[in-house]
Amino acid sequence: MPLSPNEVIAGLRTTLGDAAIITDRADMPAYLNEPRKRFHTPAVAIAMPPDVPALQALCRWANGAGVPLIPQSGNTGLVGGQVPLRGDEVVVSLKRLDKVRAVNAAAGNMTLEAGVILEEAHRIAEEAGAMFPLWLASQGSARIGGLLSSNAGGVQVLAFGNARELTLGVEAVLADGRLYQGLNALKKDNTGYDLKDLLVGAEGTLGFITAATLKLFPQPEAHETAIVNVESPAQALELFYRLRDRTGSRLTAFEIMPRFGIDLQLKHGLLATDPTASPSPWYALAEVNRMQGTPDGALQSGLEDAITAGLVSDAVVASSETERVTMWAAREQMSEVQSKEGASIKHDVSVPIAAVPQLIAEGSEAVIKAIPGIRPCAFGHLGDGNIHFNLSQPVGADRAAFMAEEPLANAVIYEVVQRLGGSVSAEHGIGQLKTGLLKQVKDPVALEMMRAIKQALDPNGILNPGKVLG
Amino acid sequence: MPLSPNEVIAGLRTTLGDAAIITDRADMPAYLNEPRKRFHTPAVAIAMPPDVPALQALCRWANGAGVPLIPQSGNTGLVGGQVPLRGDEVVVSLKRLDKVRAVNAAAGNMTLEAGVILEEAHRIAEEAGAMFPLWLASQGSARIGGLLSSNAGGVQVLAFGNARELTLGVEAVLADGRLYQGLNALKKDNTGYDLKDLLVGAEGTLGFITAATLKLFPQPEAHETAIVNVESPAQALELFYRLRDRTGSRLTAFEIMPRFGIDLQLKHGLLATDPTASPSPWYALAEVNRMQGTPDGALQSGLEDAITAGLVSDAVVASSETERVTMWAAREQMSEVQSKEGASIKHDVSVPIAAVPQLIAEGSEAVIKAIPGIRPCAFGHLGDGNIHFNLSQPVGADRAAFMAEEPLANAVIYEVVQRLGGSVSAEHGIGQLKTGLLKQVKDPVALEMMRAIKQALDPNGILNPGKVLG
Repeated sequence: MPLSPNEVIAGLRTTLGDAAIITDRADMPAYLNEPRKRFHTPAVAIAMPPDVPALQALCRWANGAGVPLIPQSGNTGLVGGQVPLRGDEVVVSLKRLDKVRAVNAAAGNMTLEAGVILEEAHRIAEEAGAMFPLWLASQGSARIGGLLSSNAGGVQVLAFGNARELTLGVEAVLADGRLYQGLNALKKDNTGYDLKDLLVGAEGTLGFITAATLKLFPQPEAHETAIVNVESPAQALELFYRLRDRTGSRLTAFEIMPRFGIDLQLKHGLLATDPTASPSPWYALAEVNRMQGTPDGALQSGLEDAITAGLVSDAVVASSETERVTMWAAREQMSEVQSKEGASIKHDVSVPIAAVPQLIAEGSEAVIKAIPGIRPCAFGHLGDGNIHFNLSQPVGADRAAFMAEEPLANAVIYEVVQRLGGSVSAEHGIGQLKTGLLKQVKDPVALEMMRAIKQALDPNGILNPGKVLG
Repeated sequence: MPLSPNEVIAGLRTTLGDAAIITDRADMPAYLNEPRKRFHTPAVAIAMPPDVPALQALCRWANGAGVPLIPQSGNTGLVGGQVPLRGDEVVVSLKRLDKVRAVNAAAGNMTLEAGVILEEAHRIAEEAGAMFPLWLASQGSARIGGLLSSNAGGVQVLAFGNARELTLGVEAVLADGRLYQGLNALKKDNTGYDLKDLLVGAEGTLGFITAATLKLFPQPEAHETAIVNVESPAQALELFYRLRDRTGSRLTAFEIMPRFGIDLQLKHGLLATDPTASPSPWYALAEVNRMQGTPDGALQSGLEDAITAGLVSDAVVASSETERVTMWAAREQMSEVQSKEGASIKHDVSVPIAAVPQLIAEGSEAVIKAIPGIRPCAFGHLGDGNIHFNLSQPVGADRAAFMAEEPLANAVIYEVVQRLGGSVSAEHGIGQLKTGLLKQVKDPVALEMMRAIKQALDPNGILNPGKVLG
């Protein structure tokens, strides 16, 4: 027999005390309203354990009593992993676990608790003279626990990897309250299975990540940043190959943007002028890090060669930090500006990088055929093969009628992605939004392995039930 | 009732056919004699499945019949993971699975089967105009399956990571013969648990890795390589920090060597002359990659600054590929030359990089106190915090009497490693050599999680039983 909501609240009160729980619906919206405004299931309560032992006590009690718990940190996830699905869950916010446990910039690591906000993590690294290279749009509110649980990506994955690659070790509370002590600052440790990488990206279904030792990197002395006119995604890819061959691991970002997204930004006043002297059907945004004692100009000279080779018609290299910020704004506003044009259907997909031009061409053609008037806006991390394949509604279309076409649009885009050997969730994870899709597209043996691991580590199924595996 | 050896052989014959099995002891040494010459348990038979379906059939049969299987590829492991432990096992060599499935240098990946030899993988990458940056002493015989199953390291982990970081996706046959189809060429894929990284480094206890999609990198145009006189490991660490701050991810190697190891190489004729103009108690070996269009001299100017700052007394920058090869030989012969001085006790350990000087100082002092006359030779990957803490026997000591001190020497070194937050196996894994040690030093919750995962994925315990978890 599952506990009644009142019994759950009584149990929380006994386990954590009144000060660590929210039971009044009026105080819950900050924990239940998520960025996509798609999920509206209530929670029985919100728990905010003040420290790791309190979280362990909560899990011990919940595991015995069969109370489902939802790990939440910044509540910025885009697939509903951090909010209720069934209505009988307790949302467990880790925001009070916000201590900085250690910072060692020279040795290249820092240990932060799950509740530290990403921007704060950037600041801690910078104050120590180092850099923590995880940058994404929600960095002002996303917290370490959720960033790791969702294996967050962002704009510098090309050089530094996803959250997983930026993590040396984690500490986690398991379903039954045991504490996994896997914090370490080791670059090499071959003593058994890779539990760190299993917990990272598990979206809170295998444990609560409570702290992590994260990699720090030397700060570059400067950046070279450019926006470049390219005729097509195929030319952008060719340019990426050339720049990467010249700059290797110093190439930290290579993004692609369609003219449509630039037009929208000009129309809605998010951008004052065209990014280059003449309009172009596609743009690439490239950035190269420069360390101390390395001369300037690797990006500039690479672009000059590409112009000579006829690959690029025009390019602007930022001559100041202000110009660099403006260039990045054009990229970062791509998603936001679409909301000013009505409804949009979004896909966060990846393919092998060589297949990106085909993805964009075939995906756009197929979706326009399926939904006449739809306006594709495919942009993003070309260098990682990760495209945000967003689709704006036809001009003047009814918002609700357009959104009713979402299943069709999804089917069209995911068919192309699957055919090209891609992933239906490159960055955002599965959460509750994509569990049905995962069953359709994932290797069945992989799904069986995941279910066996879930059963082994959370036999009572109390951690984020129904998420990821459905 | 377990099958008798004759019943096992009969079953193998039925499942694979005569051509795919070795049952004559006289033909088995190549599969049973391993590099350390420490393990001497016989096998019931050697199986060499010709392809993946044959391996699946073998596993289905073995899982039903309760026959233990030992995955083996190049038989170069240093901890006995790939050879028998109990005597009732069948060694399953994957050397016939040696197809090149795909190479796409521009897109930065290649897909190879488990039996491909590492040197062949280097050649395949080079012929395609790219680089596969996994370099280690056994590369002429080590094969992809074992390199991934042991998460191999080597001399360029600093810039490119271990085998795990070099792998995009794997294909694996599970204990019951199911095929996990996880090959992909995606840099970003957040669709469920990270099964790839669980299989990589599991030392064949969770599945047979049969193929892998591996990362390729652009070839650098040139290298800058230097050997540098430093007074101490602390100065070497300081130099590492400075060079890394100047060159970032272009610093591909930073190794440390003691004078003792250089002396031995001079004495035994492995090195013709001193590596620098004047002898030094310690040496660093540093290498920086240079891509197209980047000027030379980042390492040179970094070393000049370090000399001005009084950190370095002398340095030689290689002026030709021959000089570079000689510098690397001095490093690579460190382990080999010790065998010419009698017996040696070896430890492959890591600590947070800031703690390397303390590890070397305290480990050396403690072990000399415990075993008078013992000659420490601590060298290796300073930039990764990974030291090969080798110990040569006292001059003129009895070989067997010295080796009887191994448990004492281990206890002394591992105590220091543990105290500094380190790992007792940085690169080589656990195999059968270190299972007792793992139980002593590993977080007990981590061990419980590993056992639960092993039970979930190999419930009959047929894959490499007794390895890693004991």
